[in-house]
Amino acid sequence: MGVEERRQQLIGVALDLFSRRSPDEVSIDEIASAAGISRPLVYHYFPGKLSLYEAALKRASEDLASRFAEPREGPLGARLHRVMGRFFDFVDEHGPGFSALMRGGPAVGSTTTNALVDSVRQAAFDQILSHLGVSEASPRLELVVRSWISLAESTALIWLDGRRIPRAELEKQLVQDFAALAAVSAAYDEGMAAVLRGALREEPAESPFGELVGRLIALAS
Amino acid sequence: MGVEERRQQLIGVALDLFSRRSPDEVSIDEIASAAGISRPLVYHYFPGKLSLYEAALKRASEDLASRFAEPREGPLGARLHRVMGRFFDFVDEHGPGFSALMRGGPAVGSTTTNALVDSVRQAAFDQILSHLGVSEASPRLELVVRSWISLAESTALIWLDGRRIPRAELEKQLVQDFAALAAVSAAYDEGMAAVLRGALREEPAESPFGELVGRLIALAS
Repeated sequence: MGVEERRQQLIGVALDLFSRRSPDEVSIDEIASAAGISRPLVYHYFPGKLSLYEAALKRASEDLASRFAEPREGPLGARLHRVMGRFFDFVDEHGPGFSALMRGGPAVGSTTTNALVDSVRQAAFDQILSHLGVSEASPRLELVVRSWISLAESTALIWLDGRRIPRAELEKQLVQDFAALAAVSAAYDEGMAAVLRGALREEPAESPFGELVGRLIALAS
Repeated sequence: MGVEERRQQLIGVALDLFSRRSPDEVSIDEIASAAGISRPLVYHYFPGKLSLYEAALKRASEDLASRFAEPREGPLGARLHRVMGRFFDFVDEHGPGFSALMRGGPAVGSTTTNALVDSVRQAAFDQILSHLGVSEASPRLELVVRSWISLAESTALIWLDGRRIPRAELEKQLVQDFAALAAVSAAYDEGMAAVLRGALREEPAESPFGELVGRLIALAS
């Protein structure tokens, strides 16, 4: 194998191990053994476990960000719903590693890992604005989108802790949470209200957004 | 000064510095100078910066958790609204330190600091359940409460980054966010719906919850 090919193989092996257990439980010896090479050879490609972890996280980050891409066609609720499905696929595939990373701590909290997590959040933010047809977000719209992204993260973390709620329900609920948070914020911001009205206008009644509105009315009356 | 008195004074000085700047920018020299003692004397009381940081964070955590306490009287929305005011007071007083801690990273991500942050989240969770009159949360109620707590954290972090939205608006919005997330979840869980109906029944029309319902109806129609 060439140098780059070997590096890529090692990253793949490491990502698999770092996904299945908390990174501080995975040793270089284990990675070497899973890759079928010697421990010194691992160190030939990566100076230490942290640099290998960061390389694996970079691959995972690019993978996750690529799953946010969604054609700009059809109702917004259905688009977001499809993205949520792919997000939970990712969370499911990388469960223990995702939990360890997002809960922070010395094993995973380097400046590089934080920057990678932030880059994925930024990719999600950019995608959502683009689907909303907004090029520059007002402070209130930015707050809704960024705080909803953190809500999606914490919902996924809570799901991983015992999986006591079916993920399909959470995927739909997060779409409805987005509409609900936007609706709360719309009271304070006419631009936000316009974005929301535009989005709701194109929603079929049987979509996640449409369903939510019906339910809220029933609850309120 | 006695040993314990000196320790407590040092913790207070350190907390003040760690609150006003990111902890990794604060040196032991600076803490010694602010406390009016020598650097070696600081090390006599605390083996290193991390242990002093952890002691300061412990004091801040207990302070924040104590602000969640609220008499069990009157409408729930107003109670949560008062707690949100005290939460933003705390965030305001400890801004840079709060941001650095919640954004994670090597300077602040020890096992002890993570446990302290989790203890504050747990105190918030316990308070909310107690005000809802629920002794054991269903998985869906637990999800709503815990994910709303993370929403409050991220809202505060986004507020600190430029303070572009008045905090009074965010304090009220978070109360409404709680009701909105509960309303979304109520569709999936009869117990959750019962909790929400009970809470809304006692809300005056001019409360944050009452206002929200009126706005949602207006938006939906």
